[in-house]
Amino acid sequence: MQELIAAIDLGSNSFRLQVGRIVNNQIYPLDGLKEPVRLAAGLSPEKWLDMAAQQRGVAALQRFHERLAGFSAGAVRAVATNTLRVAKNAPDFLIRAEAALGFPIEVIAGREEARLIYVGVAHTLPDPHRQQLVVDIGGGSTEFIIGKSFEPLMLESLYMGCVGYSLSYFPDGRVEKRGMKEAELAARRELQAIAHAYREVGWELAVGSSGSAKALAEILEQNGLSNGGITRDGLEKLKTLLLRAGNINALELSGLKGDRLPVLLGGLAIMSAVFKEFGLDRMVFSEGALRLGVLYDLLGRYHHADLRDATVNAFTSRYRVDMRQAEQVADTACYFLEQLDPQAAEPDHLDRRFLRWAALLHEIGISVAHSSYHKHSAYILANADMPGFSRMDQGRLARIVLAHRGKLERVAAIDPGSSDWLLIACLRLAVVIHRARDKRGLPPVKIAREGRGFSVNTAAGWLQKLPLTAAALEEEQRQWLSVGRGLFIRSAAVRPAAAA
Amino acid sequence: MQELIAAIDLGSNSFRLQVGRIVNNQIYPLDGLKEPVRLAAGLSPEKWLDMAAQQRGVAALQRFHERLAGFSAGAVRAVATNTLRVAKNAPDFLIRAEAALGFPIEVIAGREEARLIYVGVAHTLPDPHRQQLVVDIGGGSTEFIIGKSFEPLMLESLYMGCVGYSLSYFPDGRVEKRGMKEAELAARRELQAIAHAYREVGWELAVGSSGSAKALAEILEQNGLSNGGITRDGLEKLKTLLLRAGNINALELSGLKGDRLPVLLGGLAIMSAVFKEFGLDRMVFSEGALRLGVLYDLLGRYHHADLRDATVNAFTSRYRVDMRQAEQVADTACYFLEQLDPQAAEPDHLDRRFLRWAALLHEIGISVAHSSYHKHSAYILANADMPGFSRMDQGRLARIVLAHRGKLERVAAIDPGSSDWLLIACLRLAVVIHRARDKRGLPPVKIAREGRGFSVNTAAGWLQKLPLTAAALEEEQRQWLSVGRGLFIRSAAVRPAAAA
Repeated sequence: MQELIAAIDLGSNSFRLQVGRIVNNQIYPLDGLKEPVRLAAGLSPEKWLDMAAQQRGVAALQRFHERLAGFSAGAVRAVATNTLRVAKNAPDFLIRAEAALGFPIEVIAGREEARLIYVGVAHTLPDPHRQQLVVDIGGGSTEFIIGKSFEPLMLESLYMGCVGYSLSYFPDGRVEKRGMKEAELAARRELQAIAHAYREVGWELAVGSSGSAKALAEILEQNGLSNGGITRDGLEKLKTLLLRAGNINALELSGLKGDRLPVLLGGLAIMSAVFKEFGLDRMVFSEGALRLGVLYDLLGRYHHADLRDATVNAFTSRYRVDMRQAEQVADTACYFLEQLDPQAAEPDHLDRRFLRWAALLHEIGISVAHSSYHKHSAYILANADMPGFSRMDQGRLARIVLAHRGKLERVAAIDPGSSDWLLIACLRLAVVIHRARDKRGLPPVKIAREGRGFSVNTAAGWLQKLPLTAAALEEEQRQWLSVGRGLFIRSAAVRPAAAA
Repeated sequence: MQELIAAIDLGSNSFRLQVGRIVNNQIYPLDGLKEPVRLAAGLSPEKWLDMAAQQRGVAALQRFHERLAGFSAGAVRAVATNTLRVAKNAPDFLIRAEAALGFPIEVIAGREEARLIYVGVAHTLPDPHRQQLVVDIGGGSTEFIIGKSFEPLMLESLYMGCVGYSLSYFPDGRVEKRGMKEAELAARRELQAIAHAYREVGWELAVGSSGSAKALAEILEQNGLSNGGITRDGLEKLKTLLLRAGNINALELSGLKGDRLPVLLGGLAIMSAVFKEFGLDRMVFSEGALRLGVLYDLLGRYHHADLRDATVNAFTSRYRVDMRQAEQVADTACYFLEQLDPQAAEPDHLDRRFLRWAALLHEIGISVAHSSYHKHSAYILANADMPGFSRMDQGRLARIVLAHRGKLERVAAIDPGSSDWLLIACLRLAVVIHRARDKRGLPPVKIAREGRGFSVNTAAGWLQKLPLTAAALEEEQRQWLSVGRGLFIRSAAVRPAAAA
């Protein structure tokens, strides 16, 4: 019995599908598909993605859809990077894109992209134990990682890519001295923000991992401009050749593929700037990249080593969460969720995991200030670098945590059918019940759906002994009413003593 | 020669002025004024302050103004608390209020209020070395502090006060069982959020420090309901008397002053809830309060022991700021400010201090995420508890830090004549120049005002050697143009060698 998993990378230059086979906890790449969508070229200066680019993207995903017939939801992960991070109409496009692909698509943050790239590269290098600098020049962003073995030490993502740089500085493939100089300076200015810190940490080997690096290595090698990989000297020679030709279309270069032609010049300028700011002489190319990293990450989730758990743990410690309180709120909230949705009794159930993460993190905002701390918690969750979490994951956590106290109207825009409402109900009730912060254990309370709302059934006499909790539950009723849902609180009758 | 200083407290119940004389680093309270403004009573459910309340406030401040004739700006500090924290039209009111008072008015955050109250109380207790719980039931909020000597250990401010509680639960002074019970429950629910943590830390002595505490202590003592201070038993007896009378106006109580009458019942309900949730038997009354704390804080600033410096230091360490970089940006920024405003050469110049604080803190947002870190820095500065800083102080810091990189349009709303623009120009230029994060020292750059904008004059040949900085300065020119200000960059001519 063999297991197949698949990664889809909705990049700013191309969309790619990679299928892999799991054998003994290793991934063997099988077939892949590549579509030169050039999504970033359809991004207006005001960050709107035009219809033509959207159309190209959707068509590519429809083709991927065919290859993915028969894959289960847990075996596929699709991630989108910079262009969909910045496009203002990304949410609209994503609805159509997900429909075409047939699987959910996650927009990932720049550092998360860098982390996944490193995971991919580390699995392809002959000796990952050396400290290495990995540079991935993408269509819309460039990632920089220093890592050793399978551990990234530094992660950054800068907002510059080969598509935008080619369009801005080399229109119609023209190569002029001024354009080349400006492109390099612009890239070097971006790099200045990180180069000093990276050079202090240092590396033994520089690795390039994107299509740009691959194309440059092949061109330099096949045209006798380098004796292996990308070299500083080779890049200078290539620039001289291009400047002399005046246009990339006027130059015959072995190894230059047609789909790389429109973006090579931007990639070259960025690479040249990287060599200067990082003081590089040589860079090797590695096939491993984002797609492979996504596959290995998926393999980890398959085998219950989900990085997201580690991230949540790291956050509870960084923001000094009162763990006793967080754990008991999490336990009670999950206990309620099981009652609302029996499938959530499975420890791996995704709603259950999100609820647990939200409960463990709901008080991180106290690190900023106590007043309105739920808003600060939500701010951090929406904006922080959270390895393993996609932007959507973070958005969901932020939403649930924001709604854990105070006005429910704040989240009234959540889709009425979303399971987020169940998670919010469970978390709010757990927080109300454990407000005194003493050690109470699971409360004698049952919760069930009732109409659009919920019913809360308490053990006989329990609530009578807790007038503060009773008053807080009354306030909860008002809050749920404000979003058009009932909260019905019932106390089991005290049984009369049996007749003698 | 004697120094006089003055504190004004724009409370939710009354406005008060306290004048003090500084003798040997101690403050001797001189005269004070009290105006029963009851500002909170003019706050609508939608948090708009009505005209009548505003009028009462302005009239009171006009009377204070007369007493403050001859006081220098540095010798007066006016602080406003909860009602002006929450009123949506507070900015409008404050313009009129400052005009009436003749001095700036700062709205302070709840925890900052708690801290100042503790400073005041600690200076009046016979033995401040005991660990004490201080409770200050104000008109619009109630502060809770545990402290020892002059050091607060825990600080909280809850949004409940004697004005609002009196209006909501005891309309027209009516005392009914149901209203009393509901008021106490509501207060206890608020208290639940903090009582557990406070009881864990513990105290040896409970102190009440507000008008409510003073009135309750006097009533209990003068009517034989307690043998000193406020007691649990005394509070119960007082409630029984009031419930029996049915209306506070129907009961003759010795020690109850006319201006306290409309707010006593709310204060009583909150105090009763405090006794229950904190498990108190007795509370002593202390005269020291917010006004005295403000005076001592002002004295500290007078003697160069400004708490704000300590807070900035604490923040750079909490958020792990790269101090080498922060210090050199701060040095360069202040060097520029001196050139723009010679008065800012004084180490105590307020603009200079704000610029230095902003420079030291501009990178704290990196703790959340690297991308858009200036926004995260500004978020933390706007929302964190920052001892010694008023809300306006924090707003100013947040504004300058937000504007230290990226689009200047974001802060286009800053008043054109505000010195904030100078601080922003100095900070932005310093950040651009030190972008490489290496140790550079002060740059050979002079800055001057030119029209609405600035001119930047660099030493001969300096910028030519720094093409990245030159490119970044060009981008700065575009940014300043976007807010209608010029940035003129000139390089001094290289002097020809002297003729032989």
